[in-house]
Amino acid sequence: MQKIEHIGIAVKDLAAAKEVYENLLGVPCYKEEKVESESVNTAFFRTGNNKIELLAATNEDSAIHKYLDKNREGVHHIAFAVQDIHEEMKRLRKAGFRLLNEEPKRGADNKLICFVHPKDNCGVLIELCQEINNK
Amino acid sequence: MQKIEHIGIAVKDLAAAKEVYENLLGVPCYKEEKVESESVNTAFFRTGNNKIELLAATNEDSAIHKYLDKNREGVHHIAFAVQDIHEEMKRLRKAGFRLLNEEPKRGADNKLICFVHPKDNCGVLIELCQEINNK
Repeated sequence: MQKIEHIGIAVKDLAAAKEVYENLLGVPCYKEEKVESESVNTAFFRTGNNKIELLAATNEDSAIHKYLDKNREGVHHIAFAVQDIHEEMKRLRKAGFRLLNEEPKRGADNKLICFVHPKDNCGVLIELCQEINNK
Repeated sequence: MQKIEHIGIAVKDLAAAKEVYENLLGVPCYKEEKVESESVNTAFFRTGNNKIELLAATNEDSAIHKYLDKNREGVHHIAFAVQDIHEEMKRLRKAGFRLLNEEPKRGADNKLICFVHPKDNCGVLIELCQEINNK
């Protein structure tokens, strides 16, 4: 794990949440991106050398929709930048962590991603992410 | 807000959680600290230029004990480093955020801290923290 890449926050209303985080952080959202494969709209903020990613569902199949059916709005995952996602997946599997993807998949922000089961991380959904073309 | 200073994670069993995060992050815990005023034991990890803070209650009066009575283990708060906590509190109050402390209080890791109501931040409890002697 190199560093925290971003913190993902599940929200119901992306426009309203964007305004809140612009006021809270004192910086504008620098990018919005729709991720079709995950059925989410995202909005990104920079803070130090990390990012905050707001996530809103685009339909009922979205993991974010399902999450917000059971939970209140709040932190959905912590994403860590990794140099080599395949190596890191191998290391974590060997250490007994359960991965939610067999293979890395394409995420927002030009990344290959893989999730680690929250039950293995004291309730925290962990994302590994590797910049595409990083390697 | 300068940067994410740390992410606070509420856990039931600090020793077990320490082992999990050592394995996950691939680095050892570098500090443990009991914060009497908050009735918590904490364990810190470095990741990039941020920290992960594991928090376990030391008694039933602890905010972490009350949190875990109602919620599962997981992310409890996101803490942002600020240069001048009084100025930042003033700015946020003016922008309509509700602060949970009238005045900054002493937190773990040699910091002055103040919390911002989670309801004003899409369910995320936000901590402001200023290094003591920073100013």
